[in-house]
Amino acid sequence: MEEHIESVGKAFVDHYYNLFDSNRPSLASLYHPSSMLTFEGQKLLGTDDIMRKLCELPFDQCLHTITTIDYQPSCFGGAILVFVSGNLQLACQEHPLKFSQMFHLIPIQGTFYVQNDIFRLNYC
Amino acid sequence: MEEHIESVGKAFVDHYYNLFDSNRPSLASLYHPSSMLTFEGQKLLGTDDIMRKLCELPFDQCLHTITTIDYQPSCFGGAILVFVSGNLQLACQEHPLKFSQMFHLIPIQGTFYVQNDIFRLNYC
Repeated sequence: MEEHIESVGKAFVDHYYNLFDSNRPSLASLYHPSSMLTFEGQKLLGTDDIMRKLCELPFDQCLHTITTIDYQPSCFGGAILVFVSGNLQLACQEHPLKFSQMFHLIPIQGTFYVQNDIFRLNYC
Repeated sequence: MEEHIESVGKAFVDHYYNLFDSNRPSLASLYHPSSMLTFEGQKLLGTDDIMRKLCELPFDQCLHTITTIDYQPSCFGGAILVFVSGNLQLACQEHPLKFSQMFHLIPIQGTFYVQNDIFRLNYC
């Protein structure tokens, strides 16, 4: 069970940040109409609003490097909580930004979608 | 609904860190036998293991200062996700440590317990 969660969580994290860095609009496939994103305190609801926000971020090229990933089973029906910390390197900045992000992944038809997503930059 | 979640989440966060800083053993009242804590990558399951870990941390006096709190409804039955960032000042250190922490709060008999808890220090 624990191995399954780590395997799913790790595959999700790899996939999510790879899409973010290479083809951001395709992240839409990971959200649902009920999904929630809180991005630096701003609340977005549903795939359309979430994708508008992510695609309007004031940078194009970026590279996420993951530092830590923690996984736990959520308490309902195979859902998984994933907690990520890492660096976000923007093409326009010398030093990477540090961030923390959590995802609540819900199983559906053999795959998972993001129901909850909370992102914060870690200011030092 | 949103106001309720923020009200519950804020009250929980205030209560949790107040207990942590003033009477750490009493945090046991917020966990259940099914609760999970991942503390800097170390996995603990159940109130007893969690409390043993929290009470054996290598510092006595500490003070948490909260920088940001984000709340979202979880997708099941009134549960709430809370994502916190802040500073942890130890009596033995000059500079505070920065941390991020998430909680999954489950309603039970008019109150909430912590089902999922993930804590990470943010190294700069």
